[in-house]
Parts: sequence; structure tokens; C-alpha cells
Amino acid sequence: MQQEIGFEMAASAIRFGEGITAEVGMDVTDLGVRKVMLVTDPHIAALPMTTTVKKTLEDEGVEYLVYDQVRVEPTDSSFKQAIDFAVANRVDSFIALGGGSVIDTAKAANLYSTYPPDDFLDYVNAPIGRGKPVPGPLKPLFAIPTTAGTGSETTGVAIFDLEAMHAKTGIASRLLKPTLGIIDPLNTVSMPPMITASTALDILTHAVESYTAIPFTERPRPERPIYRPAYQGSNPISDMWAIKAMEIMAAHFATAVEQPHDLHARGMMALAAAFAGVGFGNAGVSLPHGMSYPVSGMVRDYIAPDYQSDHPLIPHGISVALNAPAVFRFTGPAAPRRHLEAAAALGADISGAKEADAGELLADTMIGYFKRFHIPNGLKAVGFSETDIPRLVEGTLPQHRVTKLSPRPAGPEELAALFRDAMQYW
Amino acid sequence: MQQEIGFEMAASAIRFGEGITAEVGMDVTDLGVRKVMLVTDPHIAALPMTTTVKKTLEDEGVEYLVYDQVRVEPTDSSFKQAIDFAVANRVDSFIALGGGSVIDTAKAANLYSTYPPDDFLDYVNAPIGRGKPVPGPLKPLFAIPTTAGTGSETTGVAIFDLEAMHAKTGIASRLLKPTLGIIDPLNTVSMPPMITASTALDILTHAVESYTAIPFTERPRPERPIYRPAYQGSNPISDMWAIKAMEIMAAHFATAVEQPHDLHARGMMALAAAFAGVGFGNAGVSLPHGMSYPVSGMVRDYIAPDYQSDHPLIPHGISVALNAPAVFRFTGPAAPRRHLEAAAALGADISGAKEADAGELLADTMIGYFKRFHIPNGLKAVGFSETDIPRLVEGTLPQHRVTKLSPRPAGPEELAALFRDAMQYW
Repeated sequence: MQQEIGFEMAASAIRFGEGITAEVGMDVTDLGVRKVMLVTDPHIAALPMTTTVKKTLEDEGVEYLVYDQVRVEPTDSSFKQAIDFAVANRVDSFIALGGGSVIDTAKAANLYSTYPPDDFLDYVNAPIGRGKPVPGPLKPLFAIPTTAGTGSETTGVAIFDLEAMHAKTGIASRLLKPTLGIIDPLNTVSMPPMITASTALDILTHAVESYTAIPFTERPRPERPIYRPAYQGSNPISDMWAIKAMEIMAAHFATAVEQPHDLHARGMMALAAAFAGVGFGNAGVSLPHGMSYPVSGMVRDYIAPDYQSDHPLIPHGISVALNAPAVFRFTGPAAPRRHLEAAAALGADISGAKEADAGELLADTMIGYFKRFHIPNGLKAVGFSETDIPRLVEGTLPQHRVTKLSPRPAGPEELAALFRDAMQYW
Repeated sequence: MQQEIGFEMAASAIRFGEGITAEVGMDVTDLGVRKVMLVTDPHIAALPMTTTVKKTLEDEGVEYLVYDQVRVEPTDSSFKQAIDFAVANRVDSFIALGGGSVIDTAKAANLYSTYPPDDFLDYVNAPIGRGKPVPGPLKPLFAIPTTAGTGSETTGVAIFDLEAMHAKTGIASRLLKPTLGIIDPLNTVSMPPMITASTALDILTHAVESYTAIPFTERPRPERPIYRPAYQGSNPISDMWAIKAMEIMAAHFATAVEQPHDLHARGMMALAAAFAGVGFGNAGVSLPHGMSYPVSGMVRDYIAPDYQSDHPLIPHGISVALNAPAVFRFTGPAAPRRHLEAAAALGADISGAKEADAGELLADTMIGYFKRFHIPNGLKAVGFSETDIPRLVEGTLPQHRVTKLSPRPAGPEELAALFRDAMQYW
């Protein structure tokens, strides 16, 4: 096996500015498309930002169909419902207005309606699915995030819950990237505090995961460049985006949660989300994300405050963040300098810190955010107990595509210890 | 007039690694193209890297035609010759192997063969040309830089010398961007010292120009997003790329020039070129580039050491750099903090520096590089004298598209003073 010799950066084009949502009708007209599927969820469909998008489409005389049935934390069933809508209506382009769930659903509707596979699992990441490459370019997709978290507007990843397995998995290809991410701080102002905090913790966690992931040179080189994964390990370009995202977070996180109408802070957090998205979209995530999938999938009766949901829901940002301090304590010794740099970028004072303290210092920085923003105190606080650990481990093991990027390998025993450590932090 | 409210970042996908040139044959096959135009210049055509590219195309059974008649510092005539070749041979894709001249020529061949205009000047930047928008997506173009300077592998800009006017101008559209920039440090190792230094000074100068350009919010907002220029003024994303490019330069410039076979330094400089390319490709350049076009265009008999040329030639990197210290002294007072930050990123000690010293400090940093790397001492050293100033000013005035991004406006009198200051530095 030859080790990897190269890395690749690809990102959606990004447009940023207060009020630019009203430009999207002109974008689709100037691209020459004729029938847009506007993908959103029932909650966002009732907000003024949806009116803004409809109005710009109407002003430009573009035909559009509203699909507002996206499920928060989508499933294969909810993906299929959106795909059926796209196929039945023969749309030629997509506008996604929403959080990661909406944007990911639009990516799936685009892929599966453009190149229908023999079986739904064909494009799903191996080993859960067959990991077949996307055959060619997709239709135009404009992604307008309404949260500052996922970074999905910049990436080629779509995550969903495979109901039969009670675990999250996804589809990943650079071809899934939106044509343009339209980042408008005005769309994030109405996020309530817990959604702001949860989505921001997603930024924070995947930024650190991509920065502390194994270097790209520690992966095997693929036979052909088309097989080089987007989740390729840390590299000089993803590093730059990840560190910058952390620095912006450290400066604006508290203001965005505590003074929700501060447009500058909202804008900077939205930008941090995109920066972190380009970072992890070209490096990958690792243990905290891999461990989060069974946590979200095995939810019993917890519904996070501020989330309007008709089903139990541990939001993605919470489920990744709750595992993270335990993971950073574990991975610190494997890449101490990078853990220290991440802690510093997140605002920790690392003067005089020893390499041996790196993981603990980063974990403490994160736990500090938990306390300040009333995040649940570990997995127990969202309904888990020690007896769940074997099933949590079992749900993490198939997430090899991301967990293998951890700078310190974690098998079943290590994962059990990590979940145990994540049960309660203070 | 409404002020601008948004900015946009678009960049070619970038692949980096020692030896990845040999992958390009697989890239074109996997994209399904059938007839490649391999664009290069007579000098590079004879180097082993050309053999590498031919071999990977032959291994993959891809039909290709070599066009090796690119002129260093291309003209409208040399562009047209390449365009005629592309049209006559009905190629469906391009590989550009060379410096900025080669990559820019391939971009022009792609645009003009895909959407032939009524007149050559239709796509050329106003006011020299008509600045018509590119009508739609172009054919695949893989750009493999052999210098570390231009950043053309990441941008949608193609620069040439319009012979009738004896001045440089260009074509700019995000649609001109290469499909993929393939950055292989092995291709830059054979650059002789003066070419290394000249191309590196191009990186340095355009990185500083984009970082000190007016903020995007100081431009008028276009009527439609399709008219938002790539040269849109400084913004938080271009700033990040520009500063990172300067920091990499400061760390590796000397090694790349003085120990040309140091592959790590060569790789980092190649990366800095791409970073600076994404930066200025999404922010713009300003006075040093605007002033450089008549300098290059009015060359009399100077041929830079190490350049193999059958005609007098002031390389692009030299002609932009020679104006830069004079410009930075002039623009410093308009954006002192940014000039200080740029000086610091380039390695200057700014502790205790006052805002009033910002321009001078940045100019001195640059002049330090000139002395160390035997760069000509100002415009006099490349054949100009005070009597040329009126014509140099006249040649700069039409470059309004870039000069208007200067943080301090410069009319004819100011430009004359700047050229006078640039005549000799020590």
C-alpha cells in the first residue's frame, strides 16, 4: 500500500452579506433554469425569510414549487419523500432554505432525482451502503442556511438516519456541493438561544475534529484521483479554515447567544460556520461525530429546549459536543501541539501549558462553553445511562469512515471508556 | 447609488502534492473528455514534466494535441493563435502546463473557442474592451503551474498585452476558472533563481494589494449578482488567504531562491502562490498591478536574467514589484493598520511601530527582499527614465478596473509622483 501523496480542496462558492437572500431569484434566472424546487421545513416555511425567497422568484418570473416537509434530523424515509417530489415534478434546480437537515435533504433530492440508482443504499457511504461514486454533475443547488452551524452550504455531505439501523450515516461526494452558499446573517437572527448554542457547538466540534484529524499523508493513496475522499485528513488548507473558524467563534459565540439581535456577531458566526464547513469538508471529522450518530439515533424521550419537534430529538450539535471533551482528553497525547493550538484559538490561555495537559485543557475549554450556555451536562442529562454503552459502541463501530481519522485509534474498549467519560462532566 | 452589501468567494478546486502531475490523465478520462489540447511554451515543452503529462495521457488512451507556441507575456496575437488551434482541432478540454502566460492563454483558448464573440474585444475588460459577461460554463481546464507566482491556476483572470495600445489588459470572469489547479512542487524545482524571485515577488505584491484594497462595502452594489466583479475589494475571506500567503512567503522565500532543490520550501511557495491567487482572485489588485502594465508594455531592450526570451522582457513579477514600495509609502496613511499587518506577516518587526510609519515600514520590508535577491533597483535599472513618466501615467489611467481599488485615489499627478519615486530605491 502506498501512502497518500496529495490532498484536494473543493468548496462551494460562498456569498455573504446582510440581505443577499433577496438576490437568489436573479441567480436562478441568470443561470437559465426554469423550474425550482424550494426545499424547507414546516417551521421555516412560515417565517418571513421564506416570503423573501418566494418574492424574488416571483419578481423574476421563475416557476417554483415549495416542498416544506423536511424532517429535522432527516431519515431515509424523509429523504425519499423529497426525492419523489423532485422526480414527480421534474424540477431542474433547487433552493434549500434551512439548517443542515434542509440542505442535506435538497442534496439527496438533487442526486437521486438526477441519477436514480438501482437501490437507495448505492450512494450511501460504505460499509453501511455501497459507496458508489456520483456519476456526474448535478443540477444547480442554491443553499441558504438559516442556522450558523452545519456548514452544509459548503460541503458535499448529506447526513441522515437510516431507520432500519437506528444510526446516522450519509452520502459524500464533491459533486454534491451546492452551486452557491448564500450566507445572510438576517436569516439567523431569529434562532432561539439553545438552537444558536447547539449549532455553534457543531461548528466548534467539527473545526477541532478536522484540525486534529490524522494528516492526509497517513491515509493510503487511492488508485485514481476520483477515489480520493473528501474526508482526507488534515492538510494545510483545511487547517487554515478550521483555525480561523475557531478564532471567530471565540470572539463572537457569547454575543450571538446572549445578544441574539447583534447582527455583527450573527454574521461572524454564520461566516465561522462556512469556514469550518470548508475545513471539515476537505479534511473530515472523527470520533465526536462518529460517536454522535448512535447518540442521536438512540434518543428516547429527550427534546432539546427551543426545538419545535413532534418527536424526541437530541440536536446534532449537542450530540457531537457531548462526546467531544471525553474524546479530546483521549486524543490529546497523540497530537498535543494541535490540541494546544485549538485550545488557544478557542480562547484558552495556553501560556505555560505542557504538552501533557493539551487534551485536558481543550476539554476544559469546551466544558466552559457547556456551563455558560446551559448545555446538558453529559450523556446522562439527555437520557442515557451506563447500560446503554454496549449499544452506543455497537452504533459507532460502523462509522469507520470518520472514526479512522482520529489521531488515536479507538476500538470497542476505548469507545466504551469514552462514552463512560462522556456521561457526566461536572 | 447603493453601496455594496455582499461579497462572493469562488476558487478553482486545488490539488497539491509531490508527483500528482502524473494523475491528470486519469482526471480527464474520469471526466469523460475525448480530445485534449495540451497548452505549453517551447521551453517547457522540452522539459521532463511535459513527458510526464504526455505519458499519463497515453497510459489512459486519451487523444491529445500539443500546442507549445505560448508566448511569455502573451499578446492578443498570441492568444488568437492558440484560439485558432483550439477551434481548428475541435478540442473538448484543456491542460495548461506552464506559468501564468500558459494558463492565461489556455483560459482564452477555452473561452473564445467555446463562445466565439463577434469581436475579440467583446470579452476584454472595459474600458479597453466591452466587458461582456461570459455566456455560460466553459470546457474542462486543468491548470498545472510550473512557477510559484501567478496564482492563475485558481483565478478567473487572463492577462495579455494588447499590441495596438502597448498596454496590458485582461479578461475576467468567475467562469474562466480552471476546473482544477494541480500544484506539484516537482514542477517548480527547475526554476532558476531570478524566475523564482520574480514570480515570488508577484505573489508578495498581489497578496499585499488585495489585503490593502478598499473594503468591498466601498464599491457600488451591482444591479444583479451576475455583475458583481471578482475584483470586489477586500473581504474577510480574501484577507485570510492573503495574510496566510504572506506568512508562508516570509518563512520560505529565501530558501526557495537560495536552495532551489529544497522541495519543502518549493512546495510551500507553490502553496503560497495558490493562496494569494484565491485572495486576489476574490478581492482584486490595485496600483502596483495597474502601474505594471505600461511598464511591461513599454519595455525597450531589457531582458531579465534567467529568462529565455527572443524579445525584450520585464517579467510580470518584476514590473509589479518595482512599483510597489512607492505605492505602499503613498497608500500607508489611508489604511495604516492593514499596512502594518502586512509588514508583520512578511516578517517585519512592527513592535513599537507607529501608524504613521506603516507605509514606509512595508516599503522597506519589500526593498529588503529586492536587495537580498538581486532585483533591479527601481524602474531606472530596467531602462526607464524620468522622461518616460508621462507615457507611463497615460498607460496606467485606463487600468481603472484595478487602480480604483486603491485605498487612496491616484490621479495623473499622484501617478507621476509614484513613478518618480519608483525610479530608484537605494
